[in-house]
Amino acid sequence: MPLLIFIEQCRLQVDKALSTILPDESKVSPHLLEAMRYSVFNGGKRVRPTLVYAACHAFGGVREQADPAACAVELIHAYSLVHDDLPAMDDDDLRRGKPTCHKAYDEATAILVGDTLQSQAFEVLGNDCLCPESTLTDSVRLQLVNILSQASGLAGMAGGQAMDQCATGSVLNQQQLELMHSHKTGALIRASVRMGALCARALQDDELKSLDHYARAIGLAFQVRDDILDVIADTETLGKNQGADMALDKPTYVSLMGLEQAKAYAEELHHSAISALSGFDHSADFLRQIADYIVRRSY
Amino acid sequence: MPLLIFIEQCRLQVDKALSTILPDESKVSPHLLEAMRYSVFNGGKRVRPTLVYAACHAFGGVREQADPAACAVELIHAYSLVHDDLPAMDDDDLRRGKPTCHKAYDEATAILVGDTLQSQAFEVLGNDCLCPESTLTDSVRLQLVNILSQASGLAGMAGGQAMDQCATGSVLNQQQLELMHSHKTGALIRASVRMGALCARALQDDELKSLDHYARAIGLAFQVRDDILDVIADTETLGKNQGADMALDKPTYVSLMGLEQAKAYAEELHHSAISALSGFDHSADFLRQIADYIVRRSY
Repeated sequence: MPLLIFIEQCRLQVDKALSTILPDESKVSPHLLEAMRYSVFNGGKRVRPTLVYAACHAFGGVREQADPAACAVELIHAYSLVHDDLPAMDDDDLRRGKPTCHKAYDEATAILVGDTLQSQAFEVLGNDCLCPESTLTDSVRLQLVNILSQASGLAGMAGGQAMDQCATGSVLNQQQLELMHSHKTGALIRASVRMGALCARALQDDELKSLDHYARAIGLAFQVRDDILDVIADTETLGKNQGADMALDKPTYVSLMGLEQAKAYAEELHHSAISALSGFDHSADFLRQIADYIVRRSY
Repeated sequence: MPLLIFIEQCRLQVDKALSTILPDESKVSPHLLEAMRYSVFNGGKRVRPTLVYAACHAFGGVREQADPAACAVELIHAYSLVHDDLPAMDDDDLRRGKPTCHKAYDEATAILVGDTLQSQAFEVLGNDCLCPESTLTDSVRLQLVNILSQASGLAGMAGGQAMDQCATGSVLNQQQLELMHSHKTGALIRASVRMGALCARALQDDELKSLDHYARAIGLAFQVRDDILDVIADTETLGKNQGADMALDKPTYVSLMGLEQAKAYAEELHHSAISALSGFDHSADFLRQIADYIVRRSY
């Protein structure tokens, strides 16, 4: 199956599951629910759920089994975008070509949307009624909670976000930049791959190590490509203001290494990701194709 | 044992566990960790952890067993205070007599502190290394995740917070006010009691029902007493600006019923909470005394 069809199937699969989790009606706060749905169903590429499903597939699992993990990582990702866009953070007006949550609603609502999406991410792992087609054991579900909470918190995404806030306007070297990105975006990408594999079956140490090597490499490559796109793509393709990071005086791979070296580095990371999967059979082809896609995507 | 000694023991117990979870050092973001510790170790009364431990005691459990639940509810409570105080929300400068997190640090940090504390709440339930003296099974831990995530999210605290934001400046009747409070503060109080009991042992339906009746009543009583204190206490005792809710034109039990009727209602709820525990033996005495404390506290 070509990757684009697989990606589309994953998008449909996770969106169906997310629709059940975020129903049309809420007795408590319809306004909040509407803003949550606005922030989750916004044309996102669903890269992290796709990684979850692809990793599950690589270990022989069926897609339904990984629904809770796919939804949970996407909900965490969605919450982080809503909070990152806030005026006190990156102060972005546009996200994927549409007004950001605090622009479409208001700041208080956007803060609550992020908070609630995070709770919901853990609820979908804890509550086996939310994705009824998945029959994960309590033990696996608890491991998913463990992986996701660590990837989201101080030692993961939020910690990286704090490093990013502190770094604005300062000069970072490559090691510092990678430390920041390996937390800010890398942690959740690694968690997605690991959680997907875990939904298929318990992992052996060597499998876990290879998989993590792959995930680290594509996580970094994703960020390097993002920085490249921030410079070469136009605003329409990107759905956000072109050069936004440069304008904020944020350190990027391009500002650090220059455009050509950043491109070469993305290719190097791609090679490293593919090598890490050398012990895997054709079941891991989607993971391989995702690595290709990440370094060559144009949006 | 008198309640005040029990409360002090619970405070020491949960603070010790929280100190391990929030260590002094972070390689990732020392700044964020410092702000997290500032927001968690701020002289809070630890009402929710005390309820967790008291409910665990009522069902014959030892206190250590309930550490993960006690820490998790306090971390959720701490995150909610940090976000509630933000300029876009209640815009409070003082919390327990000290500058609020966004005043002591900045808004971006306060947003990240809240986000990270929430992740940490679920991590302490998921990761059995964090409270090593607790030997809960995976199945119980997963139930705790389930209860806490529901109590925190759309159908719980955050949903209630959204109702509160929408209600500012409008006239609510008692039913609407109770619906708001039963979510905003009640959901986490009910979760605390239920989680504490669950750490001791699996609950039977009738026990669960009585316990929930008790928790609902004290949750409401807590809010009614808060509204009363907002009017009768002075700023120094309360650690926040006296009359703050009134000044924001927020609906309160006092603005709705008048001061005397609000006091009578608090007593009625107290009676209801005590009645709900009639089938319990002396092990539930701390729960009974907490009900007394809640409706008679002066801060």
